[in-house]
Amino acid sequence: MRTAPRKIAVMGAGSWGTTFAKVLADSGADRGTRVQLWARRPEAAAEINERHTNARYLGGTVLPGNISASTDFAAVLAGSEVVVLAVPAQTVRGQLRSFKAAMPAGAVVVSLMKGLERGTDARMSEIIREELDWPQEAIAVVSGPNLALEIAREEPTASVVACTDQETATWIAEACTPEYFRPYTNTDLVGVEIGGIVKNVIALAVGICDGRGMGDNTKASVITRGLAETTRLAVALGGRLETMAGLAGLGDLVATCSSSLSRNNTAGRLLGQGLSLAEVNERMTQTAEGIKSGQAVLDLARGLGVEMPITEAVVMVLEGTLSVDAMAARLLGRQLKSEGELA
Amino acid sequence: MRTAPRKIAVMGAGSWGTTFAKVLADSGADRGTRVQLWARRPEAAAEINERHTNARYLGGTVLPGNISASTDFAAVLAGSEVVVLAVPAQTVRGQLRSFKAAMPAGAVVVSLMKGLERGTDARMSEIIREELDWPQEAIAVVSGPNLALEIAREEPTASVVACTDQETATWIAEACTPEYFRPYTNTDLVGVEIGGIVKNVIALAVGICDGRGMGDNTKASVITRGLAETTRLAVALGGRLETMAGLAGLGDLVATCSSSLSRNNTAGRLLGQGLSLAEVNERMTQTAEGIKSGQAVLDLARGLGVEMPITEAVVMVLEGTLSVDAMAARLLGRQLKSEGELA
Repeated sequence: MRTAPRKIAVMGAGSWGTTFAKVLADSGADRGTRVQLWARRPEAAAEINERHTNARYLGGTVLPGNISASTDFAAVLAGSEVVVLAVPAQTVRGQLRSFKAAMPAGAVVVSLMKGLERGTDARMSEIIREELDWPQEAIAVVSGPNLALEIAREEPTASVVACTDQETATWIAEACTPEYFRPYTNTDLVGVEIGGIVKNVIALAVGICDGRGMGDNTKASVITRGLAETTRLAVALGGRLETMAGLAGLGDLVATCSSSLSRNNTAGRLLGQGLSLAEVNERMTQTAEGIKSGQAVLDLARGLGVEMPITEAVVMVLEGTLSVDAMAARLLGRQLKSEGELA
Repeated sequence: MRTAPRKIAVMGAGSWGTTFAKVLADSGADRGTRVQLWARRPEAAAEINERHTNARYLGGTVLPGNISASTDFAAVLAGSEVVVLAVPAQTVRGQLRSFKAAMPAGAVVVSLMKGLERGTDARMSEIIREELDWPQEAIAVVSGPNLALEIAREEPTASVVACTDQETATWIAEACTPEYFRPYTNTDLVGVEIGGIVKNVIALAVGICDGRGMGDNTKASVITRGLAETTRLAVALGGRLETMAGLAGLGDLVATCSSSLSRNNTAGRLLGQGLSLAEVNERMTQTAEGIKSGQAVLDLARGLGVEMPITEAVVMVLEGTLSVDAMAARLLGRQLKSEGELA
């Protein structure tokens, strides 16, 4: 078994990147692990180094002393045994092109990103493999019911570390085990990624129902049928049913759909209340990834012949070709079916 | 295909019995269906007949004109083509013994009850078959994400009608299709019943976490692992995986765990806040079935060699042999595992 990493790079100082840096730093504090955060904005780097906070995203949370930050990505990457990527999903390809020459050989690349690239429908791990020419067994994904603000407050949380190589998954899992964070391992990288992507779209649908004033019966049905269509897509891509029934599938979906902390849920609620997409985007300070990935999910599904009626309805609402009222009616159509045909 | 039932008996005028009577009556109004409710209390029967309300359970909801009520169970049963049972799970065996002689031959018996009988660990459909000597193919179960008060308010709701005989399932489903209620059919009676039973116990666990102030990450993990243990039990009894991923499994669990209308969720929250079981029972006006069925679920699981750690923890809290703080720690233990071993 490899020893604990001494230096870890976390590329991106948003709420999840910073929170996961804290998880890694708390976990490795007594094993000599140092975590370096790459921040785009100099003020953010300075605040992390001088005041040990990232108030814009994490309020008063005090970051541990073994986290430092820099705007110099090459310095952050140099000598890191683990490189965690936490940049916006739609910008990752460009970022990786600039990181490439500075990438430390032999490092495990860990994606925290949840989205499909628009235009290519590529998963984040696929972009990493392509752009960095990185070996599949050194690419991992962390995903699960992981609302960042709750983890920053050290509320007990379980998660999944996925890598096609079980040993690498275990090594990364062992590097993120502070008292409040419990990672499980999984070799189904595809299933874990798809769960994390599609839940954002389903959370928009549940948010829209919420915004229309629909009750818990309806929302539970949309969650159930949303997981069913997510599972169909994951299985068509080679993912496993069990993954979708686990923390990175069901767990992440339920956490996202229940929480007022979820950007996608919030964006959906605003749409449901009658705001236009432009108005919603104006009100939100952070990206609701489901808005960006929805069309790519649908394109991917269509290419595979997978039906995703909830995703389709959400994309039509975002495009403005379906009203939120018509969407609600569409989600609860009138035909009698056996449950196997459900959705 | 059989024509719509002309007379339907609903035995039990609590919140779900009365609400489902409204579903049936609204659905069959233009097909000449009459629904008779059997109420234990004369005042309840009088209120339903004279004011068309059942204020104790459904507030101001006005019941349709083709519902009447009576305390005379033989009169209610006489000539009914469908007999819906909506009495408390722990009293059903005794009730069926008194109903038996008056049961209309050839009727389909529909259970709305969610619980396991204490002492025998019997499912409701098993008690119906035993006590009434009724054919399996004429016993159905209705279950799903069905918070009664939301349905009474006519909020769109999906549900599952399960019967080992597909034609019977379809006939019952067609008898409960007002605009706001969408039944799917399923032939997996066992899976549908187990989903409806165990979710009450898991909702207690989620409620306890809520009461301890734990966040959405934790609650989503308990829901995920709770569904996993429910599925293990259902499959061991011959139920299907797909049923547990559907409306009567996942859907019902999510609705129950999200809703402040759920008695089990509420009871769990009070336990989590530090109240004793006796104090909780005193505060609640209606039964939290999970409190009654928990031990029976555990007994059933043990007899089959199925591990149900969340159910076990809930039963210990109810017994007073595990504190709510120790339970929380137990639910998020510290060992690293692969996700297949989860729970």
